[in-house]
Amino acid sequence: MSLDGRYDPENIFAKIVRGEIPAATVFEDVDTLAFMDAFPQARGHSLVIHKRSAARNLLDIDPADLAAVMTTVQRVARAVRAALSPDGLVVTQFNGAPAGQTVFHLHVHVIPRWNDIALGRHGEGGMAEASALKTLAAMIAERIE
Amino acid sequence: MSLDGRYDPENIFAKIVRGEIPAATVFEDVDTLAFMDAFPQARGHSLVIHKRSAARNLLDIDPADLAAVMTTVQRVARAVRAALSPDGLVVTQFNGAPAGQTVFHLHVHVIPRWNDIALGRHGEGGMAEASALKTLAAMIAERIE
Repeated sequence: MSLDGRYDPENIFAKIVRGEIPAATVFEDVDTLAFMDAFPQARGHSLVIHKRSAARNLLDIDPADLAAVMTTVQRVARAVRAALSPDGLVVTQFNGAPAGQTVFHLHVHVIPRWNDIALGRHGEGGMAEASALKTLAAMIAERIE
Repeated sequence: MSLDGRYDPENIFAKIVRGEIPAATVFEDVDTLAFMDAFPQARGHSLVIHKRSAARNLLDIDPADLAAVMTTVQRVARAVRAALSPDGLVVTQFNGAPAGQTVFHLHVHVIPRWNDIALGRHGEGGMAEASALKTLAAMIAERIE
C-alpha cells in the first residue's frame, strides 16, 4: 500500500485493540496501547499504537493523537531500558509499504540495541513464542513509570 | 556515547541552532527547527530538532517538547511528500551510539523512500553539496502547511 488509500478497520492492530487477536500487552491507557512485536527484530522489540485513531500513517494522524502515542513511546522506551539494559534504542515508524510498513495502522517501533548483537530483519526470525513475549512484556510493564 | 551522559552544548546541532554553523533550513517555529541532513541517506532526507531542549535523546526530553518536535516532523513529512512524491517515508530516531546516534542532541530523521532506490547508509554518500541541499530545502519549505 502506498501513502494513499483508506484505513482498513480489519487490519491486525485494530483487531488487537478490539481484543479479537491476543497480544502481549506492555502498557495501556485511555488513548494508547503498547505490546510486543510478534516478529521481533531484537529482544524487547515493542510497538505503540493509538487505540481509536483511524490513521494509517504519520501523514494522516491528528497531532494530538500523535503526541499521545509519542508520550507512551517515551514511557515504554524508558521501561525497556530499565528492564533490559540495552546499549541503545532505535525508535522508528514506517509510512507506506516501500518504507517497510506492513500493517496500515500507525505504529511506532521501540527496538533495543546491544553492542554485540546485530539487528535482525523484520520477520527474519519468524514469529516469537507467545509465552516468551508475555514474559518480556511483564518485565517491561513492571518498569513503566 | 551510551544512553547515559550529559548534554554537550557544543554538539553540532546546538551550533546550528545558535547560527554558528550553517544549515539548509526547511522550517522553523518558536520551538523547533527542520533542516536538511548534510549526509543524506536519500534525496530530501530532513532532520527535526527542538531548539531549546537540552535533551540528548528520547529518554531525556520533556514530553511537551517531544510533542512539539513530532508536530513539526509531521508537517515536514507532509511537505516532503508534496514536494518530492516519494513512495514511502521512514521516520526514525536513534538513542545512543550503539543505536546509530552520532549527534547527541535529540533529532528525528524524515527519510523519503522510492520503490526503485535502495536506502543509502548514513554518511556513505559523503557530505552533500550545500547548494543542492538549499535547493531541496526550498522545494520542501514551499510545501509546508
